[in-house]
Amino acid sequence: MNKDNDIISTIESTYGYYSSDIIKILKSKDILPGDKIEINQNDKTLIGNLITQNELGSENNIIIKLENGYNIGIKYTDDTTLKKLSGSIKLEDFKIKNATQSQNLPKISLLSTGGTIASRIDYQSGGVVMAMKPEEIFAGLPELFKEITFEDVKHLFSFGSEDLSKNEWKKIAEEVASQINDNDINGVVITHGTDTMGYTSAILSFMLQDLPMPVVLTGAQKSSDRGSYDGATNLIAASRVAAKSDFASVLVAMHHTSDDNYIQLSRGTKVRKMHTSRRDAFQTINESPVGLISPDGKITQLIDDIPKRSDGNVHLMNKFDDNIALIKIYPGINPELLDWYIDRNVKGIIIEGTGLGHVPTYPDKTNMSWTPSIQRAIEENIYVGMTSQCLNGRVHPFVYRALRSNYQIGVSYLQDMLPETALLKLGWVLGNYDYEDLRATMEQNIAGEINLSIKFKEYSQNE
Amino acid sequence: MNKDNDIISTIESTYGYYSSDIIKILKSKDILPGDKIEINQNDKTLIGNLITQNELGSENNIIIKLENGYNIGIKYTDDTTLKKLSGSIKLEDFKIKNATQSQNLPKISLLSTGGTIASRIDYQSGGVVMAMKPEEIFAGLPELFKEITFEDVKHLFSFGSEDLSKNEWKKIAEEVASQINDNDINGVVITHGTDTMGYTSAILSFMLQDLPMPVVLTGAQKSSDRGSYDGATNLIAASRVAAKSDFASVLVAMHHTSDDNYIQLSRGTKVRKMHTSRRDAFQTINESPVGLISPDGKITQLIDDIPKRSDGNVHLMNKFDDNIALIKIYPGINPELLDWYIDRNVKGIIIEGTGLGHVPTYPDKTNMSWTPSIQRAIEENIYVGMTSQCLNGRVHPFVYRALRSNYQIGVSYLQDMLPETALLKLGWVLGNYDYEDLRATMEQNIAGEINLSIKFKEYSQNE
Repeated sequence: MNKDNDIISTIESTYGYYSSDIIKILKSKDILPGDKIEINQNDKTLIGNLITQNELGSENNIIIKLENGYNIGIKYTDDTTLKKLSGSIKLEDFKIKNATQSQNLPKISLLSTGGTIASRIDYQSGGVVMAMKPEEIFAGLPELFKEITFEDVKHLFSFGSEDLSKNEWKKIAEEVASQINDNDINGVVITHGTDTMGYTSAILSFMLQDLPMPVVLTGAQKSSDRGSYDGATNLIAASRVAAKSDFASVLVAMHHTSDDNYIQLSRGTKVRKMHTSRRDAFQTINESPVGLISPDGKITQLIDDIPKRSDGNVHLMNKFDDNIALIKIYPGINPELLDWYIDRNVKGIIIEGTGLGHVPTYPDKTNMSWTPSIQRAIEENIYVGMTSQCLNGRVHPFVYRALRSNYQIGVSYLQDMLPETALLKLGWVLGNYDYEDLRATMEQNIAGEINLSIKFKEYSQNE
Repeated sequence: MNKDNDIISTIESTYGYYSSDIIKILKSKDILPGDKIEINQNDKTLIGNLITQNELGSENNIIIKLENGYNIGIKYTDDTTLKKLSGSIKLEDFKIKNATQSQNLPKISLLSTGGTIASRIDYQSGGVVMAMKPEEIFAGLPELFKEITFEDVKHLFSFGSEDLSKNEWKKIAEEVASQINDNDINGVVITHGTDTMGYTSAILSFMLQDLPMPVVLTGAQKSSDRGSYDGATNLIAASRVAAKSDFASVLVAMHHTSDDNYIQLSRGTKVRKMHTSRRDAFQTINESPVGLISPDGKITQLIDDIPKRSDGNVHLMNKFDDNIALIKIYPGINPELLDWYIDRNVKGIIIEGTGLGHVPTYPDKTNMSWTPSIQRAIEENIYVGMTSQCLNGRVHPFVYRALRSNYQIGVSYLQDMLPETALLKLGWVLGNYDYEDLRATMEQNIAGEINLSIKFKEYSQNE
């Protein structure tokens, strides 16, 4: 399909969406994305590195990255001339500046797991590649070394975060536990790709029981060669929280607003990436942020209900059973999907229902109703947990008749738990508990994943 | 499973989660949910109707609905006495007050499709039932009849909105088209359940082409017997927009904040229910709201890019092919799910990827990579469209190498389109266009589902 599509076939991957006229001109001057070029137009001159055209509808706009890191688009006209100045930018070499540190500073360990915070633009391909070593992440952050000592800086892997799953989660949890239990440190920072940071923060919240100190995940939404790079401020704040805060919990530290100002701290089970590209993409869902970190390092606590630092070891419970599934409901979704999962002997399913926790029931169109398949799942001893695709708010089995009927069949309503958190909790409970305790454990708050402080009154009225 | 669970087996559906002690006391006094009771405690007296206990952990709190519509919970102690005053509240009879209307007022038609706006609490079951006729929705809104005449008030069906799918969408679209093309009206209002209102508003935006006047969906998050009922203000505002505004588009009118103050107007393809219970649950995603309606009926337009009223007929294109699927990606999701859909000969699939539009690719764990299955789908002529589970922001095929590879295989990146809107657009395009035009049509803005005004610069930098 689409292989013969006109629009698509004219795009050359190196140049992206540039028009064939522009590509002809660029080729004639031996200019590739990444090359430093000079653009002259109406007596004005701009210098920067050519970027792949990533936007449909802007085929005739030449995009360059200016020296200040910002991109600018110039519409190519008859008055425009282009000149190649030099080949691609070379990445400078970085060195970790940890040598002259005082022994009296708080100590943390840093684990790097890939992601944009550890990435750079590959101008030749126009894409971002994962290439930095953990030491490189620290380059340009000398101020951090006046406050904090690094006990250990370890590179675990450098996948895109969409490729992390149970083996990586287990490995991260194991490494965190060993850093905490075997070293004399104040906290742990984990750099992580942002796309699945909320998933990893949720599963670590369960795998790291009795945590005695902060474990802070952080990352970057913008890559490190850009003026808008957010990785540095995020990493500084995350390191300060790990080194100095009183929170003994898995937390995510990312921008609070799109300004490079306050960094927001979210509980690992209550956070979700809510924008593809903004620096303040991470939102705390169904509770307040745990705290804010000001540019000068002041940590303001915003909620009471967060575990405090303690002595003692973290208790590692990092088994995970991935014989699970998440189903997002939509109108008209065929219940045979659930039957397929039942036939594959999954042990548990999280449903992301509509509203307060609905699935289609169609009293008059029985073959499209989900009720018989849900009933079958429960009869076959498969756990069925209900969450909401609204993400915000609480599912509730007693408001509508259809919901009461789901509840009576045996569907487990998971309060205000995020669907993604519920899925990973399910895999964790299956891996670490007896099956007979599954439902009770799922419905019990273990790592702040259920916010008990939103009471019935608020829920049912004008909250 | 769970049939032997102690907690569950003690719950009687009528009383919900009340403890067995409380249920014993209630039964001894012949008190059922819905009955008016008097509670005495420490010399204080409260009167209200008993409500089913809907909250785990509050088994000993007696919940009553006060006369002001609010619920209150009283912890039952040794000092508490209960007295039954009378049986259940009777719903009053309503009558439509449309008789004495002037002929010079703007005319609209109202279509009712069920949902909370057309619901009432069934105190006996503690649940909400769909029972009101469309005339009943208007009871208590006499002010509306000074401004607007109703050409037609029609009850289409009263399902819970989770049970609406293609047949109902077709029917609503047909009825709207007939109201517009056959009558002399200024606009149409559709009352709808909130859970899937965003789905219905999206599909109607496609099915009703060349719309010459406003079609406004509205509903209620709180039921009509509550002090916090939002259906009346929503319906008044929706009716005013249908009767008087200049917008020729499918719109959703729901609370702007949790106050009963401004009502927010969202484009039908850009709106999503983002809270299970709040009155301001509906958020416009990836653009500004179309407008706000003040309590006195003033309509303030907030964006320019919205079609204007015109003469002429609506062009009904209400075919829908539901041989489609939406897959929400999570770390570790098995690509066999996609193969299952391919084997079932779906014609198109929308992927709700992570971040900028990722699926697992695992360069070193090939049997869990989604790349081969996506490749297979595209080779078998199945459309694969990419959206983001971040909901906000834009997917983008050129930022990361893994994305470029998806793009080169033939995955269609759907910009800032909501996953749910993309799914319904897919069914609509399949139903109404030649298959060879599918991808181009999906990538083209038809009903405001792609916001072209967020340009590359904003996207890539600090938006």
